[in-house]
Amino acid sequence: MKLYPMLAALLLVSVQAFGQEALDYKLGGGSPIVNADSSVTFSIAAPMASKVKVSGAGQTLDMVRDSAGVWSVTTLPLAPDLYTYTFEVDGVRTLDPSNIYTARDIAALSNIVIVPGGSADLYAVNDVAHGNVAKVWYSSPRLDMERRMTVYTPAGYDPAGDRRYPVLYLLHGMGGDENSWSELGRAVAILDNLIAEGKAEPMIVVMPNGNGVLAAAPGETGRGMYTPRGEDSVAEYGVFENAFADIMDYVDSHYLTVAEKSGRALAGLSMGGGHSWRISMWNPDMFDYVGLFSAAVRWNGSGVSAADEELDESLRRQFDVAPRLYWIAIGRDDFLYDLNKEYRAKLDSMDIPYEYHESTGAHTWTNWRHYLTEFLPRLFKD
Amino acid sequence: MKLYPMLAALLLVSVQAFGQEALDYKLGGGSPIVNADSSVTFSIAAPMASKVKVSGAGQTLDMVRDSAGVWSVTTLPLAPDLYTYTFEVDGVRTLDPSNIYTARDIAALSNIVIVPGGSADLYAVNDVAHGNVAKVWYSSPRLDMERRMTVYTPAGYDPAGDRRYPVLYLLHGMGGDENSWSELGRAVAILDNLIAEGKAEPMIVVMPNGNGVLAAAPGETGRGMYTPRGEDSVAEYGVFENAFADIMDYVDSHYLTVAEKSGRALAGLSMGGGHSWRISMWNPDMFDYVGLFSAAVRWNGSGVSAADEELDESLRRQFDVAPRLYWIAIGRDDFLYDLNKEYRAKLDSMDIPYEYHESTGAHTWTNWRHYLTEFLPRLFKD
Repeated sequence: MKLYPMLAALLLVSVQAFGQEALDYKLGGGSPIVNADSSVTFSIAAPMASKVKVSGAGQTLDMVRDSAGVWSVTTLPLAPDLYTYTFEVDGVRTLDPSNIYTARDIAALSNIVIVPGGSADLYAVNDVAHGNVAKVWYSSPRLDMERRMTVYTPAGYDPAGDRRYPVLYLLHGMGGDENSWSELGRAVAILDNLIAEGKAEPMIVVMPNGNGVLAAAPGETGRGMYTPRGEDSVAEYGVFENAFADIMDYVDSHYLTVAEKSGRALAGLSMGGGHSWRISMWNPDMFDYVGLFSAAVRWNGSGVSAADEELDESLRRQFDVAPRLYWIAIGRDDFLYDLNKEYRAKLDSMDIPYEYHESTGAHTWTNWRHYLTEFLPRLFKD
Repeated sequence: MKLYPMLAALLLVSVQAFGQEALDYKLGGGSPIVNADSSVTFSIAAPMASKVKVSGAGQTLDMVRDSAGVWSVTTLPLAPDLYTYTFEVDGVRTLDPSNIYTARDIAALSNIVIVPGGSADLYAVNDVAHGNVAKVWYSSPRLDMERRMTVYTPAGYDPAGDRRYPVLYLLHGMGGDENSWSELGRAVAILDNLIAEGKAEPMIVVMPNGNGVLAAAPGETGRGMYTPRGEDSVAEYGVFENAFADIMDYVDSHYLTVAEKSGRALAGLSMGGGHSWRISMWNPDMFDYVGLFSAAVRWNGSGVSAADEELDESLRRQFDVAPRLYWIAIGRDDFLYDLNKEYRAKLDSMDIPYEYHESTGAHTWTNWRHYLTEFLPRLFKD
């Protein structure tokens, strides 16, 4: 095979001359390593440091220095999952210089590593047919803004064709944005894999920005490269919910959708679960599938249940034409557990049908990714 | 305004319980700060460190510790540009924990900061109409692969409409991929801004993966989260060039293109400049605009000019139906400067018309971003 050896040599020689660019070919090291027993070995060269730690999955492990100044530690065998982690070198939060794979959660970047097995295999990009992912700007007259969303179209989707696809609207939580589900949530890989396995129907997935006061993710607007704060996410009660019709108008006019209740699902996590709860309740004819993941149900702006005088009536209207699936999922250690428990009691008292998935764990992406893998196969089946 | 104060309070209280997630609201600090005089102040808290430096733009500056253990330094006033930088804390390469904005170059992440002014204002996301950006998978029968590309469609592009748009094919260099121009190259912001100002024609911009042996960027294939190396980028001579027709077939059949020579431009940097050079030469009827940015012209697999016996004839064929614009740009300190100089001498000796833009600097994204701002306004004008 004829390569470009001289060009390669010239490029290597000239790396120093590149100056501004970070073309350090040597940085690629051996961290993290997922071992055969599902333990993970982390390492970082820090010869001058006196204390180095790695944090992830709610745990912090001290790392041990070798004679060359490389610090490392191997975890116990880990459950299959996508883990986020960072190092702390003498008190300084440090990304793994050997790992280019990162994800942002509000104002912090972490590295990511996947321990394979179980549903974590759905989080990996595999050799299957891939859907396309677009960052799309749409007009929201109700918010008087141009706003950004992420749109997944499944493999085989042909804008010039005849085939129409159902749509899942998938909403993020407080502090998130239109990138959250595709990045931290691994939604693209999950969709590609479940569709390739025949376990989920091919569908369009719309991941809008759920922050009624913002147009787009940090750095994607004229506001510049500011430091995001979770609180910035929060709009006045009802603002996003009432403007949701703008999103659906755009999607139904720009994509080959099944533009009817049987072809629409709506799900969200935390604040986005609250959005999904309210939007589906206020629009009984719109969604045949509703997913409430660790949802902030019954929040109306100043607390729980201030609108309870109307709640029963709204729920009755929704379930007079009940969705095919009303799916509630939460972890036993989630701080919204009791709120969801009370809400389920209300549904029970009203004889409203729903399905309930209770997991271990708390208010985490580990749970939300897993809920998505459970929810998707339930959608748009005859 | 009614917010969700109780939810916010609950979320803040529960941050500790999130465990796995990196929800550290406190990380957002004051680094970097672009000062009024275009100097930049960098800072990082590292109380235990004995030496902290910041590197960027080919320079390294020592930082100074204050009594609280925060290290900082202010640069001299900087020329308007997008700068990449990293910290080094006691020898450990560290991203700025206060700055979530990063870019990857091969196997290294760096932070980015924009010093405004001049063409750097084109690199910022401004409050203008935005085009959409899609990650698109296409079939390449000639490479027997499904491959990934980035496609920019300008604001107002309507797949269901009648209006057709010209297409720029924009190629990356060795070690790059289909994300390079949209990320390090800031091509999306540059296009949005130049089109909004009326300085560039609305156009579709296709940024394919130019590595004939790879399907997609690292992490986007079944190969997993490996550490990329620049050498992996390199395919056998002619492989990518000969398969380029697959890209054009896909684009012309899936987008509203002006599918003729007058509606096509082709440009690339370094290896991608070599690709552009060869593809445009081998397909004289295809491209009316050709841009060679720091281009690896005249490389044929084993060195310069081995195909010179055919070169004159190929160039004659191309310039018998000369493109409207054949634009060569390079920096005076570029390691490919002499190669380009010899090539220009050949063109001169053959009376072949071209335009030449010589800049300061070397083989850097600073130059390539700037070349793009110079090249785009020249395209598709009557």
